[in-house]
Amino acid sequence: VKHAEDLRWHKNLTAADLVDQYENVGFQSVNVARAAEAITRMYRADAKIFLTFTSNMVTSGLRGFFAQLIELGIVDGVVTTVGGLEEDIMKASGEKFSIGRFTEDDVELYENGINRVGNLLVQNESYMKFEDKMKPLLTKAYEKKNRWTPSDLFEFIGETLTDKHSILYQAQKQDVPVFCPAITDGSFGFHLYLFQQNHDDFVIDVVKDFKNIVQTTTHEDKKGVIALGGSISKHHALLACLLNGGIDYAVYMTTAKSTSGSMSGATTKEAKSWGKIKDDSDAATVHGDVSITFPLVMSKVLQTLHREGHIE
Amino acid sequence: VKHAEDLRWHKNLTAADLVDQYENVGFQSVNVARAAEAITRMYRADAKIFLTFTSNMVTSGLRGFFAQLIELGIVDGVVTTVGGLEEDIMKASGEKFSIGRFTEDDVELYENGINRVGNLLVQNESYMKFEDKMKPLLTKAYEKKNRWTPSDLFEFIGETLTDKHSILYQAQKQDVPVFCPAITDGSFGFHLYLFQQNHDDFVIDVVKDFKNIVQTTTHEDKKGVIALGGSISKHHALLACLLNGGIDYAVYMTTAKSTSGSMSGATTKEAKSWGKIKDDSDAATVHGDVSITFPLVMSKVLQTLHREGHIE
Amino acid sequence: VKHAEDLRWHKNLTAADLVDQYENVGFQSVNVARAAEAITRMYRADAKIFLTFTSNMVTSGLRGFFAQLIELGIVDGVVTTVGGLEEDIMKASGEKFSIGRFTEDDVELYENGINRVGNLLVQNESYMKFEDKMKPLLTKAYEKKNRWTPSDLFEFIGETLTDKHSILYQAQKQDVPVFCPAITDGSFGFHLYLFQQNHDDFVIDVVKDFKNIVQTTTHEDKKGVIALGGSISKHHALLACLLNGGIDYAVYMTTAKSTSGSMSGATTKEAKSWGKIKDDSDAATVHGDVSITFPLVMSKVLQTLHREGHIE
Amino acid sequence: VKHAEDLRWHKNLTAADLVDQYENVGFQSVNVARAAEAITRMYRADAKIFLTFTSNMVTSGLRGFFAQLIELGIVDGVVTTVGGLEEDIMKASGEKFSIGRFTEDDVELYENGINRVGNLLVQNESYMKFEDKMKPLLTKAYEKKNRWTPSDLFEFIGETLTDKHSILYQAQKQDVPVFCPAITDGSFGFHLYLFQQNHDDFVIDVVKDFKNIVQTTTHEDKKGVIALGGSISKHHALLACLLNGGIDYAVYMTTAKSTSGSMSGATTKEAKSWGKIKDDSDAATVHGDVSITFPLVMSKVLQTLHREGHIE
Repeated sequence: VKHAEDLRWHKNLTAADLVDQYENVGFQSVNVARAAEAITRMYRADAKIFLTFTSNMVTSGLRGFFAQLIELGIVDGVVTTVGGLEEDIMKASGEKFSIGRFTEDDVELYENGINRVGNLLVQNESYMKFEDKMKPLLTKAYEKKNRWTPSDLFEFIGETLTDKHSILYQAQKQDVPVFCPAITDGSFGFHLYLFQQNHDDFVIDVVKDFKNIVQTTTHEDKKGVIALGGSISKHHALLACLLNGGIDYAVYMTTAKSTSGSMSGATTKEAKSWGKIKDDSDAATVHGDVSITFPLVMSKVLQTLHREGHIE
Repeated sequence: VKHAEDLRWHKNLTAADLVDQYENVGFQSVNVARAAEAITRMYRADAKIFLTFTSNMVTSGLRGFFAQLIELGIVDGVVTTVGGLEEDIMKASGEKFSIGRFTEDDVELYENGINRVGNLLVQNESYMKFEDKMKPLLTKAYEKKNRWTPSDLFEFIGETLTDKHSILYQAQKQDVPVFCPAITDGSFGFHLYLFQQNHDDFVIDVVKDFKNIVQTTTHEDKKGVIALGGSISKHHALLACLLNGGIDYAVYMTTAKSTSGSMSGATTKEAKSWGKIKDDSDAATVHGDVSITFPLVMSKVLQTLHREGHIE
Repeated sequence: VKHAEDLRWHKNLTAADLVDQYENVGFQSVNVARAAEAITRMYRADAKIFLTFTSNMVTSGLRGFFAQLIELGIVDGVVTTVGGLEEDIMKASGEKFSIGRFTEDDVELYENGINRVGNLLVQNESYMKFEDKMKPLLTKAYEKKNRWTPSDLFEFIGETLTDKHSILYQAQKQDVPVFCPAITDGSFGFHLYLFQQNHDDFVIDVVKDFKNIVQTTTHEDKKGVIALGGSISKHHALLACLLNGGIDYAVYMTTAKSTSGSMSGATTKEAKSWGKIKDDSDAATVHGDVSITFPLVMSKVLQTLHREGHIE
Repeated sequence: VKHAEDLRWHKNLTAADLVDQYENVGFQSVNVARAAEAITRMYRADAKIFLTFTSNMVTSGLRGFFAQLIELGIVDGVVTTVGGLEEDIMKASGEKFSIGRFTEDDVELYENGINRVGNLLVQNESYMKFEDKMKPLLTKAYEKKNRWTPSDLFEFIGETLTDKHSILYQAQKQDVPVFCPAITDGSFGFHLYLFQQNHDDFVIDVVKDFKNIVQTTTHEDKKGVIALGGSISKHHALLACLLNGGIDYAVYMTTAKSTSGSMSGATTKEAKSWGKIKDDSDAATVHGDVSITFPLVMSKVLQTLHREGHIE
C-alpha cells in the first residue's frame, strides 16, 4: 500500500524529482506519475507508440517538444488534425505566434488582422505566406504523381523543411508517418481544392492511408497510444490499433470530462475493457491542461530513459 | 435592463415557458434563452444553417431529434463524424442501443461483447450486422462510379433507408448535404479500405467535398452555425462559412472549457471577432451537456416557429 | 433493459414530458430523469429532506423557486452560505439584481459601483441598504437574548419579512430551519462584528446549531439530501445525516468534477458507499449548471406530486 | 511582445526551469509562470499574504508542503475548512492515509471501514483515534477559558503538536493565525457539541474571529491572496481584505469553471475590478488540479526567493 506523503521543496528540485513526489500526493498529481510510468513501460517493451494531439497544441510551444520526442525515437506514428501541420510549416518558415490573453478584445484583434487561439495570437499574414508556399509545393507533388495519401504528402513536405524543431521535418528524418484523416479541414483543404480545380485527376486518397495506419502495427506488436486532447486524432489511433487486436498501453491526457460521453473525455478505464491491458501500471488518464501536464510527465520519462542509456 | 426574476413552477408548465423564465434566472440558463433567440433569428433571416454534432450524440436519442429538425426544414447542411453516421444506419436497420451507467464494469462488458459510449451500450453484434450491409452497398455505389465524395455517398445510402427517424433518410429527402470530412475514422473506413483492396481505382474524393461545402453557401447568403460539441465538425462548418465571408449567427453548445484553447471549447466571443456578427442577440454559447440543453433550446425555437406559422 | 429512444418534439410539450423523454436519451439527460425519480421517491417515503445550495444561486432567479419549494412542503431543512441569505433579505426589501454578461468590463463595473457574480450584477447600493437594515435588527434580537444560533437568528429575521418569494419568509412560515454554519462569511459577519464591539456578551453559538441540525432528523427517519453545488452546505447536510446513521436518498447537482477529489465534485457513487442506499433509483448525480437542470428536474417531480394529489 | 517558443527537454531540467519555459508555451502553462511571478512580486512587496485551501488538499501530500511554506515565512494568514485541520492533527499523531483509485468499489470500502476522498483513502480508525484526542484537548482548553475563537483554539492545539510537517504546528511556531469560519462543519463540530452538552457556557466565538481576520491586515498594508480551490476559505480571505481596501495581488488556482457563477470558479479578472490591482503581473488564475499546479508554481517562486537570499 502506498501512503500519501508530505511533499517537500528543496533547492535544485528537478522536474523528474517533482513527478516522483507526485506519486504520493493524491488526486491528479498521482496520475502524472502513473502516466510517466506507463510511457516508460511501453517504451521499454518496445511497443509501437502512437502520439496524437490537437492542432492548438502545435500553435503552442509544445510543437518543438513533439519534434524533439520524434527525434529522440520515442514515437512510431503521429496522428493529428491539419491545422497543426499548417502551423508547423509556418513556424518552420520563420513565422512567430505571440502570447496574449484569453480575455483579449476580439473585435480589436480582428481589426488588426489577428486570429486568437485561446491565449495565442496568429497573424493573418502568416496564413497568407503559407498560401504562397502551398501552390508550388502542390505543383511539385503533382509532377511526381496525381494520387497522394495524406501521410505521403506530409512526408514529401517534411523533406522540404530544414527546421529541426519541426514535427514534419523530424518525422520525415525518422521515418515516422504522420496521419491526418481530415486533411481538408483547414487552410490546407482550401488550397487542395483550388489546385484540384485545374487538375481534376488530382486526388487525396484517404482510404489508402487507412490501410497505411493499420499496417503501421501488426497483431504481434505491442501497441501503445499517448493521446493528448481528444478529437479524431485520438479516436483514429485507437481504431487503428483495435483492428490489430487492441492496445497494450494507454495514456490519455485531457481537459474533457467523461460525463458527456465524448471521445475526448473517454478515460483509460474504457481502454482496459478492450481486454488487452493486463496491468494497471500500463494505463493512466491525466485530467488537466496538456501544456502543463505533458512536459512534466515526459521530464520524468526522459530522465529515466536517459539514465538507462536509451537516449542521450 | 433585465432583472433576475424569481422562477415559479405552475402546472402545465411547457418546456418553452421554462426557457422563457430562464431568460431571467442567471448563469447558463440565460444562455439557453439566448441560444433559442439566436436560432429563431437565423431562421427568420432565412440564413443558411449548418448543424454540426459529434458521433456520441447519434448514439444517444438526439439522433431522431436531429432527423426531425431536418424534416422540419430547419437545417441546410450537416457536418459530423463518421461514427454517428454508422450508428444512424444501424438504428435505421432496427438495431437498439441500451442505456447503462457511466460506472459499468468495463471488463465484464467486454466479456459480453458490449461497447460503452458514456452511459450508452452498443453490442458488437450491431457492428457486425453493419458490416454485412456495407459490402453490397459499396458494390452498388461502385457500379455507378468509382470516385465518390463523402456527401454523395451518404446521400446514396440515405436513399436506401426507410426510417423516418434517420438523419441520412431525412437529409436525402430534404436535399440537405451531410458532410463528413474524416470519413475513414470509423468502421466505415475499414470497409472502404477492404473494398479498395479489390478495386484500386475506387477513391473517396474529400477535396471535391470541400468544394461542395464551400458552395453550399455564397458570400451573399446569411450564414448560421449551430455547433453541438466540438471536434472537426464544428471547425469544418465555421471554416466553410469563413471562406464565404464569415458567419452572421452562431450558437455553440458544449461541455468543453475555453481555458485550454481547444476548438471544442472556443466560444462565440471569438466568433464575434470575425467581424460579421453585429448584434449580441445573434450569438450565444451554452455551457452544458447537449443532451439536456439542445432539446430545451429547440423546444422554445420550434414553439415560436410553430406560432408564427413556419412549421406545423 | 431500457433502450435509447429517438427524442421527438411536439407542440405543447411540457417540461415534465421532456424529462420523461430524457430518460431514454443518454448521457446527462438520463440523470435528469433519474434525479426526478429519486426526489419523488424520497418525498413519497416521507423522508426528511435537506435542500442545500450556494449563495450565487440566490443571486439568481432560483431564489424564488427555492421559496416555492419550501412553501409547497418539499423541504424539511435548508443549509446554505450567508451571502445568499443576505441577498434574500435584500430582494425581500425590493432590491433588484440585473442580468449582464460574463464578459462585462469589470473595471468599468467597479467605477459604476456594481459587483459581478457571473453574469448577474449587484449594485453596491443594495449592500448599503442592507447595512441600514441590519443594525436595528440585531438590536431587536439582542433585546430578546444575547446568545443566538444562526438558525434562530434567521428565523427571527424571516418573521420580519413579507415577501412570499423569500426563502427566509417561507422557511419561517413552514417551520423549516435554515442552517448556515459559516454565518460570518459575508457582509452579515461584518455587521455582527460591529455589533459585538459594543455588546461584548453578544455571541453567535454555532456549536448549539450543530446540535440543532443533528436533531432535525433521527436514526429512525428516512433521510434525503438534495445538494445543489458543493461547498460546506452540501458537506454539512451530509454530515448531519451521517451522525444519524446515513442518508437513504441523495441527489447531487453540480458543475464540479470528481477528478480533483473535492466535496463539490463528489458524486452519489460515494454516498452509496455509506451503506444505506439500497436501490440505484434512490440516488442520482447530475453534471451541469443548476440554473438549467434543477428547474427541469423539479418540473417533473412537482407534476407527479400534483397528479398524485400531494400538492396543489 | 512575447512569442510562443518551442519547449525543449534537457537532462537536469529543474522544476523552475520548466516553469520558465512554460511562460512561452501557451494556454494554462503560461498562467503557471504568471502565478509564480505574481507570488514572487507579492512577497517582494512585503504584502500580507493569505493562503487558502480546501480540506481535501490536506488529505493529500500538499499538507506538508503548506507547513513548509509557513515555516519558510511565505504566509501571514491561513484560511481553511475544518476537515483539513482534523486531518492535519491525525497525521501529526502518526495516522497514514493511503493512495487508491477514483474507481474503487465504494461498497467494498465501506465494508472495510474505509472512507474515500477522491483517490485517497482514510480509515474510520483514524477518526476514532482523533475522537480520543479531542475530549482531553477541549477539557484543557476549557480550563483556560470558556469562550474561544477558532483561531485561538487552533493555535492552542498547534502548541500540543510536535510534527514539523504539520500545518498547525508550523502556524503556531510562526505566529500565523489559522482561520476557520465554519469550525463545526466536521468531526470537530460533533466533539464541540458533545462537550457543550456538559459545559453549557462553552462557546466558540466566530464573530470575534471575524474581527481577528480583519485586523490581520490594515488599509495601509499591501495585501495578497493565494486561493487554492474555492469554497468559503477563498471567499473569507477576499472579504477580509476588501474590508481593508481590497487586494493588491491575487493568485487563484482551481478546477472550477467561471461559467456557473460560483465563488470557486471566479477568476482574478473579477479581482481586478475591485480597483486596486494595477498591473497585470500582479494577478493570475491557473485552471487545473492544484495537486499538480501549486508545487510547480512554488518551485519557481522558492528558487527565485532562494537565489535572492530571502530563504535558505
